[in-house]
Amino acid sequence: MRFDIITVLPQLLESPFAHSILQRAQQKGKAEIHVHNLRDYATNKQKSVDDYPYGGGSGMVLSIEPFAACIEKLQSERKYDAVIFMTPDGETFNQSIANTLSLKENIMILCGHYKGIDQRIRDLFVTQEISIGDFVLSGGELPAAVVVDAVIRLIPGVLNDETSALSDSFMAGLLDAPVYTRPADWRGNKIPEILLSGHEAKISEWRHEEALKRTEKRRPDLLK
Amino acid sequence: MRFDIITVLPQLLESPFAHSILQRAQQKGKAEIHVHNLRDYATNKQKSVDDYPYGGGSGMVLSIEPFAACIEKLQSERKYDAVIFMTPDGETFNQSIANTLSLKENIMILCGHYKGIDQRIRDLFVTQEISIGDFVLSGGELPAAVVVDAVIRLIPGVLNDETSALSDSFMAGLLDAPVYTRPADWRGNKIPEILLSGHEAKISEWRHEEALKRTEKRRPDLLK
Repeated sequence: MRFDIITVLPQLLESPFAHSILQRAQQKGKAEIHVHNLRDYATNKQKSVDDYPYGGGSGMVLSIEPFAACIEKLQSERKYDAVIFMTPDGETFNQSIANTLSLKENIMILCGHYKGIDQRIRDLFVTQEISIGDFVLSGGELPAAVVVDAVIRLIPGVLNDETSALSDSFMAGLLDAPVYTRPADWRGNKIPEILLSGHEAKISEWRHEEALKRTEKRRPDLLK
Repeated sequence: MRFDIITVLPQLLESPFAHSILQRAQQKGKAEIHVHNLRDYATNKQKSVDDYPYGGGSGMVLSIEPFAACIEKLQSERKYDAVIFMTPDGETFNQSIANTLSLKENIMILCGHYKGIDQRIRDLFVTQEISIGDFVLSGGELPAAVVVDAVIRLIPGVLNDETSALSDSFMAGLLDAPVYTRPADWRGNKIPEILLSGHEAKISEWRHEEALKRTEKRRPDLLK
């Protein structure tokens, strides 16, 4: 699986992709992540990639030309299953979108910054608009990293322990049950006794009940 | 405003905090971001911070002792307005939570990783649990960066152009209107003529109508 991310701030994405699971996925050859600097595609003398908005108003708008040049170069090299724009007015990202994306081969992600990107980029090139939630960030870089992380960990062979992803929150439509590790007694705060019983079936039943209770209390909408 | 973030992967957060708005906010003295390596607080010989879950099952669980040591050290130095745990079963983050947090002075954020953290850390130390959405990530580091970015850009004096944040999506309960910049005609794709009219009141009216149309189409729930 291959991700191509286009951004004015490639340096912002350096460390999230260089460690932990995303690093291992790349080392194992399960995923490739390419970050492209929009400034390398600036066409004018000043190498500028943004300009004032038509009609006035505050903030700068990313221009169509550098995006078009970068997108068209990438599209001439391979076929993309999706050209995603990260934006707070897109479809809200969730585990089901992550599952669908994890089955694709080549995904391009465009990151906005400043006031936004020229609407024509969205109209002409973008096939899917994704939001990670109802809040405003400085740019689409962190949201892009979130999507890449959520998707890549679903590729078979990326996580060391496959069963771990399957028991995560949302996978069974329920939140996760509480987890505990040593010591069993910390300053008088003890773990639930059932977990020390060694009775596998009863522990599994307890976990299911706890997951159900937590979901009912915190996210009744997931049970509908 | 001060953020203290506790994580097993501090290196993952290096670049998101070292650039753009988060860097400028720190340089201007508007915000301090301190990232703490949980491993520095490991109490055992092996410097381990995680262990197998009680009751069996896959994945590793972060232990209570290193978290307690780090949290208690920080709490002995200053008072915290909130100790936040990033978790997919927390309250869903939105612009209103970001606004509230932006008025606080000291915020601590705990990042989980692997299978989760010992439930007693949540029961004994955490005052607020926040999720950035219904999806599973490798850890709480990217979500913590998302929260810090959304909050810090709201601190007066952080953005260069204050009016820019006010006209962002969600601020007025509406999505943003489309934006355009030069050229006015790109390969035959023209910008809406109204934006070239120079008629401020009409442009403002057009923007409001477009914002309303987009919100009705994409997020009718915001209009209720």
